[in-house]
Amino acid sequence: MNWNQRKESKNNKLNNVKRAGKQIDTEKIVDVLEQVLVPGDRVILEGDNQKQAHFLARALGMVDVHRVHDLSMVIPSIEDPNQIELFKRGIASSVDFSFAGPQSRALVELINQEEITINNIHTYIELYGRLFVDLIPDVALITAAQADADGNLYLAQNTEETPVLVEATAVKSGIVIAQVNEIVERVPRIDIPAEQVDLIVRVPEAEKPFPLFTRDPQKITEDQIMAGMLAIKGIYGKYQVKTLNHGIGYNTAAIELLLPTFGERLGLKGKVATNWVNNPTPTLIPAIEAGWVRSIYCFGGEAGMEKYIQQRSDVFAVDHYRNLKSNRVYAQIAGQYAIDMFVGATLQVDTDGNASTITADRLSGFGGAPNMGSDPHGRRHLTNSYQQIDGSYKQGRKIVVQLTTSRRWNHEPVFVDQLDAWKLKNRLAVDPIMIYSEDTTHIVSENGIANLYQTDSPTERRQAIAAIAGDTAVGQKCSEKERQVLRERGIVQTPQDLGIHRREATRDLLAAKSIDELVKISHGLYQPVKN
Amino acid sequence: MNWNQRKESKNNKLNNVKRAGKQIDTEKIVDVLEQVLVPGDRVILEGDNQKQAHFLARALGMVDVHRVHDLSMVIPSIEDPNQIELFKRGIASSVDFSFAGPQSRALVELINQEEITINNIHTYIELYGRLFVDLIPDVALITAAQADADGNLYLAQNTEETPVLVEATAVKSGIVIAQVNEIVERVPRIDIPAEQVDLIVRVPEAEKPFPLFTRDPQKITEDQIMAGMLAIKGIYGKYQVKTLNHGIGYNTAAIELLLPTFGERLGLKGKVATNWVNNPTPTLIPAIEAGWVRSIYCFGGEAGMEKYIQQRSDVFAVDHYRNLKSNRVYAQIAGQYAIDMFVGATLQVDTDGNASTITADRLSGFGGAPNMGSDPHGRRHLTNSYQQIDGSYKQGRKIVVQLTTSRRWNHEPVFVDQLDAWKLKNRLAVDPIMIYSEDTTHIVSENGIANLYQTDSPTERRQAIAAIAGDTAVGQKCSEKERQVLRERGIVQTPQDLGIHRREATRDLLAAKSIDELVKISHGLYQPVKN
Repeated sequence: MNWNQRKESKNNKLNNVKRAGKQIDTEKIVDVLEQVLVPGDRVILEGDNQKQAHFLARALGMVDVHRVHDLSMVIPSIEDPNQIELFKRGIASSVDFSFAGPQSRALVELINQEEITINNIHTYIELYGRLFVDLIPDVALITAAQADADGNLYLAQNTEETPVLVEATAVKSGIVIAQVNEIVERVPRIDIPAEQVDLIVRVPEAEKPFPLFTRDPQKITEDQIMAGMLAIKGIYGKYQVKTLNHGIGYNTAAIELLLPTFGERLGLKGKVATNWVNNPTPTLIPAIEAGWVRSIYCFGGEAGMEKYIQQRSDVFAVDHYRNLKSNRVYAQIAGQYAIDMFVGATLQVDTDGNASTITADRLSGFGGAPNMGSDPHGRRHLTNSYQQIDGSYKQGRKIVVQLTTSRRWNHEPVFVDQLDAWKLKNRLAVDPIMIYSEDTTHIVSENGIANLYQTDSPTERRQAIAAIAGDTAVGQKCSEKERQVLRERGIVQTPQDLGIHRREATRDLLAAKSIDELVKISHGLYQPVKN
Repeated sequence: MNWNQRKESKNNKLNNVKRAGKQIDTEKIVDVLEQVLVPGDRVILEGDNQKQAHFLARALGMVDVHRVHDLSMVIPSIEDPNQIELFKRGIASSVDFSFAGPQSRALVELINQEEITINNIHTYIELYGRLFVDLIPDVALITAAQADADGNLYLAQNTEETPVLVEATAVKSGIVIAQVNEIVERVPRIDIPAEQVDLIVRVPEAEKPFPLFTRDPQKITEDQIMAGMLAIKGIYGKYQVKTLNHGIGYNTAAIELLLPTFGERLGLKGKVATNWVNNPTPTLIPAIEAGWVRSIYCFGGEAGMEKYIQQRSDVFAVDHYRNLKSNRVYAQIAGQYAIDMFVGATLQVDTDGNASTITADRLSGFGGAPNMGSDPHGRRHLTNSYQQIDGSYKQGRKIVVQLTTSRRWNHEPVFVDQLDAWKLKNRLAVDPIMIYSEDTTHIVSENGIANLYQTDSPTERRQAIAAIAGDTAVGQKCSEKERQVLRERGIVQTPQDLGIHRREATRDLLAAKSIDELVKISHGLYQPVKN
């Protein structure tokens, strides 16, 4: 009996590949893919939140479909139209993924055309974990900034999840192919050691991550400012939350820009929001410069923030050249277990408090939200803010906040009777919930805070949500009298209850009102990149 | 304002250290520790489940306490008496940890003498996560098998958590000091790249991990065999569980040795227990050889299993030389999110079903159990066995099994009115529960299975536990009539209910009855090491 078939099969495949050292000709990439891939293979195609192996995705789309077909893809973040093409052409037939940004509409079309099977949607580290158990990869197609002649890889600001994707493939004798922008004599640091890399190919044109987390302060609305003020006073300050994560969006950007003004006025500096697990959002610059932030550990980088981070190395995680060192696995672990509060945003919240960014025509996935936006029962350490909300065995519970205005920019209500996501349900294995109501402790809108963890029944929970849902249809479900009872019990807090006046909630309160002001506050170190 | 103080402080400290390249004289290690450490520093001392930096622990115990004192230690696994000495001498004053093996008694004595502050007990990845957020390390003292002249490190079979301990330190400009068994021209693989290592020191005598997970089949009792048979038929088979983790101990060792015999007879081969996240326990050898096991991803290695693993590379995760490549972070992620069942053992279960291995005189910590033995609300993918037990929003829930005999080897009852752990409560920040009852779906003893997830009330839960607690005082709390009702409702299943007769539960059923038989079944590849 042969117990080393994977290793032998790998060696046999690689023996057929023409190469110099580990390097293959850029022009030969399609041939090489046809040599190493077998129909039905499980293939990781990177595919992270911020960087994509565009060249390899395009090359994979050019293989002979008679030779290579029905691949089972693993793509953590589906962002590249070349990835969609693989399914249209029949080269790939199914996918496991975590997040889909600009391709969320195209995914729904693929489903409607029956050109794709969605195996499962995962939160990020759930997907990585499965690579070691029952989604064992045969081939990984990944992207790096630089390689040296031996095949050691440098990943620059965006280490993200490349190391875990490679590890899972390499330890099961899978084949790792890396596209690189350039081949250098010596990489500035080794993010992936050469022995885990089988083939490297230089891309014809350098690929760089675009800014993804930059939110222009000019676009922040007064409703978002109001919701942010409520959250700072009624949650950050009330529970004295030091460790936290902010999701991406204008709602949390508003808070970042309110900390050094409104937060300072409340005397919260040094007492709240000191230690972050976050993307390096430019809107955090004023809080950093004002001395609010002790540390930020990052999932990935952000184009334009490189020099700023390098000159603020006490705050960020950096390498020996003080360049950002990110890592999505470690950041997600920290975001799950080491923080006291997760503040996210969503597209829709139903009457029960379940949230989803999936809609009938967008299969966006969930990213890291389910992991960070739930109470980890395995947590055992105690902190002051954690203990303020009863959880497992009453020891405490993570504060999970949905921060939203009652309507989106296009006036569509966020609060809805039923999530649009359910319209996709019969096409999906999984229920389309991003964050469960049972995991959510607070929902905040411009109308107030619903302290969901204090409610005694599903009915009361629904009332509390309706009470802050404003002029939406859901908002009509709570009478003024019911709202009054909830306010008296402290379950709902309105701006008035928190002593905040609507006239205060103006853009003047923002520590920076534009990208230009962020640049100025950063002493010119932040250098915005056009998307 | 200086925003790069950590980096400057590191450079200043290292400038004072006499070294050749990165190598320091073995004899000078105490001087070097006095040069780089400052009172109050947070210091990681490795400290994993299976490997310990004994040399560095001893050296740290020899520093001048007037110069270096009140260190705040991070020791994932406290196993070495040299670690205890640090607190006795006042060099260190507090600790964050996950697990304590042989030193669990000494820890209680330190507490009683008020020589230590237990900052917090964590599950493993919770502790690693905090290193990036609010337990940022100043110095890491770690252990490696080999270094090359540049400082690249090789960790052999036991990669375990060294990479994450180093990463957390290096990215915050902490100082990483590695003890190594030897310095070689070229390491077989790079587990830690040189740029993350500041100083290396060769130990005077090579340190090797001892076997920790080896359980001699001769010591497995008939009660353990009975409980194992019940579990295989009533849980593994019933829910067709493919992905799983076994804790360490004779209870789960019994199951491993029953799969190829009793499990085979039930026709379960290929249908259950195919994909594992586990330590490479020798008792898994017969199941592997019989073709039950598709893959095992390992937290660490096990002395004696090296050659066997190398010749079974399709099953294990290996490097390019087919040597085991373990990783505790990835294994814990997989164990949390990617498996459908966790089967653990414990020292005590209370009447409510809470379990703990902490007792009044042993502060053992929790290791990975809280992480793997709870339902992760962030999980979104569906499997058949997962969906059989209602969980979050009814999508499904991880099967969490406590497998135990009703009494321990010394006849002490496992089922108790109150956990001894509570006697330590006033000395600990954290409640001393390892696995919460609310996370536990089943408890299995030689007397039957308590399907806790089917109970409707705390009272019924207590009855179900008492019903399988045998002749212990807790067992008396369920009358024969109550037990009958629970059996009729399917909440309790006795051996009779599952069609298993006590006379079947003999040692003859074990696929190997001794270490020698394990060696034989492994074709001599397993080479036991004396502890």
